[in-house]
Amino acid sequence: MDEKNARKALVEVCQLAYQRRYICGTEGNFSVRLADDVVLTTPKGACKGRVQPEDLVLTNINGELLPNSLNGNPSTELAMHLTAYNIRPDIKAVVHAHPTCAVGFTVAGVALDQAVLPEVICTLGSIPTASYATPSTKEVSDSIEKYVKEYDVMMMDHHGALCLGSDIWDAFYKLETLEHYAETMLVAHLLGGVKPLSSEQVRKLIAVRGVYGLARPLPQEFVARSTN
Amino acid sequence: MDEKNARKALVEVCQLAYQRRYICGTEGNFSVRLADDVVLTTPKGACKGRVQPEDLVLTNINGELLPNSLNGNPSTELAMHLTAYNIRPDIKAVVHAHPTCAVGFTVAGVALDQAVLPEVICTLGSIPTASYATPSTKEVSDSIEKYVKEYDVMMMDHHGALCLGSDIWDAFYKLETLEHYAETMLVAHLLGGVKPLSSEQVRKLIAVRGVYGLARPLPQEFVARSTN
Amino acid sequence: MDEKNARKALVEVCQLAYQRRYICGTEGNFSVRLADDVVLTTPKGACKGRVQPEDLVLTNINGELLPNSLNGNPSTELAMHLTAYNIRPDIKAVVHAHPTCAVGFTVAGVALDQAVLPEVICTLGSIPTASYATPSTKEVSDSIEKYVKEYDVMMMDHHGALCLGSDIWDAFYKLETLEHYAETMLVAHLLGGVKPLSSEQVRKLIAVRGVYGLARPLPQEFVARSTN
Amino acid sequence: MDEKNARKALVEVCQLAYQRRYICGTEGNFSVRLADDVVLTTPKGACKGRVQPEDLVLTNINGELLPNSLNGNPSTELAMHLTAYNIRPDIKAVVHAHPTCAVGFTVAGVALDQAVLPEVICTLGSIPTASYATPSTKEVSDSIEKYVKEYDVMMMDHHGALCLGSDIWDAFYKLETLEHYAETMLVAHLLGGVKPLSSEQVRKLIAVRGVYGLARPLPQEFVARSTN
Repeated sequence: MDEKNARKALVEVCQLAYQRRYICGTEGNFSVRLADDVVLTTPKGACKGRVQPEDLVLTNINGELLPNSLNGNPSTELAMHLTAYNIRPDIKAVVHAHPTCAVGFTVAGVALDQAVLPEVICTLGSIPTASYATPSTKEVSDSIEKYVKEYDVMMMDHHGALCLGSDIWDAFYKLETLEHYAETMLVAHLLGGVKPLSSEQVRKLIAVRGVYGLARPLPQEFVARSTN
Repeated sequence: MDEKNARKALVEVCQLAYQRRYICGTEGNFSVRLADDVVLTTPKGACKGRVQPEDLVLTNINGELLPNSLNGNPSTELAMHLTAYNIRPDIKAVVHAHPTCAVGFTVAGVALDQAVLPEVICTLGSIPTASYATPSTKEVSDSIEKYVKEYDVMMMDHHGALCLGSDIWDAFYKLETLEHYAETMLVAHLLGGVKPLSSEQVRKLIAVRGVYGLARPLPQEFVARSTN
Repeated sequence: MDEKNARKALVEVCQLAYQRRYICGTEGNFSVRLADDVVLTTPKGACKGRVQPEDLVLTNINGELLPNSLNGNPSTELAMHLTAYNIRPDIKAVVHAHPTCAVGFTVAGVALDQAVLPEVICTLGSIPTASYATPSTKEVSDSIEKYVKEYDVMMMDHHGALCLGSDIWDAFYKLETLEHYAETMLVAHLLGGVKPLSSEQVRKLIAVRGVYGLARPLPQEFVARSTN
Repeated sequence: MDEKNARKALVEVCQLAYQRRYICGTEGNFSVRLADDVVLTTPKGACKGRVQPEDLVLTNINGELLPNSLNGNPSTELAMHLTAYNIRPDIKAVVHAHPTCAVGFTVAGVALDQAVLPEVICTLGSIPTASYATPSTKEVSDSIEKYVKEYDVMMMDHHGALCLGSDIWDAFYKLETLEHYAETMLVAHLLGGVKPLSSEQVRKLIAVRGVYGLARPLPQEFVARSTN
């Protein structure tokens, strides 16, 4: 995808994420890796619901502003995007948002890592929660490193969600799946409690992943925990 | 309805279902039976909020791609649509979605089959829940078969909803009625519990169905259970 | 307001009511009294989110289709609109919808008649719940009659809301106030319980109603109950 | 910002606040201080979702209509905006809305002043609740005075939210942050309870505020309470 189309797609996702309430105010930050050493990202302090293609900024893989990027500065949270790009060559886009229901689970200290919905199990395995880290400090990258290696979606305790994708839409759809899953879990909790799938049911699901063209292995910890 | 108008209507429903959050990410699949052996359906892996008329694919009643259908492949869940078309000649459209609240009921193991809201009783009778089945396998069609015979709307345990209609809007409106019903039931549950209608009240409702022009009989199991 | 503008306004309200989820599917019915013996109303079986000005139908005050009204038939629930028009000469528009949260209160048997939010107390007094009645029968008009005399907004048990206004926007805004009130009450209930205003606080509110230009007296039953 | 652009921005925020459901019906009132003695504000009794630039009214800092302002009257709640402008020279815009979840907290008597989400702590500190006051009376200005001095966002018991900003978007984004926070807290409450951040975690957050370019000190009461 060339820069012009990447700017257009990134803005579409920003506006949709705002409309669908995964972010509000000036929350969230989104990026696309255009080339090995070029990242296109949302500017610091902007409302993503109102951002325009020309507002996006270009940095190198160390987060330094590229000379031809004149507008604004990158988000103070860009470092965690770069951590993901460094660890995972297959990842070309990162979405960080504050989906209300999923964040509420972390605020209550309740995990989102049970095997419950087939679409979550087949695509993501499960959703781990990284320890709390002070935003805009190195603690954040440290907290997510171990999960980025195996997971495409993770919660950050008392903060938000991090979703990694092969392109910006893929990362955004994973954010949608996450919040839908959290909302469904909340409803079940309110009705008396979640009934997880059995290990036999999870094993069958893992066996049919090929139908969806999903090649990447599921997180080992999840597979071990849910199929035994 | 000719193919061109069917494509347009199907896309309208896809986009509305996404806007109204009955699906997210690449979830859900929708189809219309254009002729005895021709089905128009959503493509595999697409976000229904972004799908365009030319993205839809044509198959025969066995799910095999028609020669003039060049874009993409049908959903891996098309088989359950075909099961419904085979069993029910009156059905011309099928909607499969993941409405959050209704799916949450299945995750908690709580049924949606009580007689509570007149509009649900008059049009659908009640909403059964088909046993859990591994998506994209033959288990799915097996699990819904017995309900498809008598019901137009059913839940699929830990998965989603299946709605059958005389056209695509009819199927979509039934999805809306289902999720509205589930949300109303959840509110009542949170406020202390649902007070179902009495068998006398249900009998009166069944008697006035003619006013709405509803000819199809209500499911026998529901009528027997709710009016005695 | 002439017929052309009334059609336009009624359609605007229909579409907004659908977008804001006070109705779904083909639910709800809306009307405007254009003259003493002329009522403009939504057609039977239509989705209000898709209705167009030319789809609306004209009836006389007995609900009989006027000769120049060619499209469709009025809703089977028009009778309750006519009951309201007959009892209340000041009412020029009626909105009937199924707001999820407020209907959930009736399904749980929990009243919405406490004195809690100033904007509800000043404008509506409180919201009574009419007994359950079989839709499309004379029971409906009977159940609402006594409330229509004194109240502009009422719930209909296990069914929906009825809102009366000096014009269609006024009736619609009352529907919005009702559902906002019910949602706020639900949140408070979930957090431990509603703390109603004291009789002293209600008395002060009633004293300042003139600031809002509200001339119509509040329902006597509400005033007596909430200020002593 | 000149008057023409201020009218445009104020209308954009009005419509967005309505679309995002922070207000409904004719609720809420919004203003911008254009100059030391000139305030642009929403008119009495209008639905903010339908307001147009020419509907806004101009008053002086005492709330008296300016001669060139021909349309309508200012809201009966303008007095509290003026109180905020008088006490805080840095404030150029005020948003008053009725966000459902946050208002529900006040109706239950549950405070929103815990240290839980980093973005709230860094930008607002915490959210106090002003005592109940009869709307449209002097009680309202009296109830908020002490909070306006130190806080940019506050709840008004059984009524709504008041958000102060350096411009209208800044005030609106604070409203969004408030309701997102309240919704997240409700989810956590429903899942077993909120786990606040430790005083050590709050101290670290306060230390990194400079990164966001936030110069204004946090409320002393909040800092004292949350870091010891």
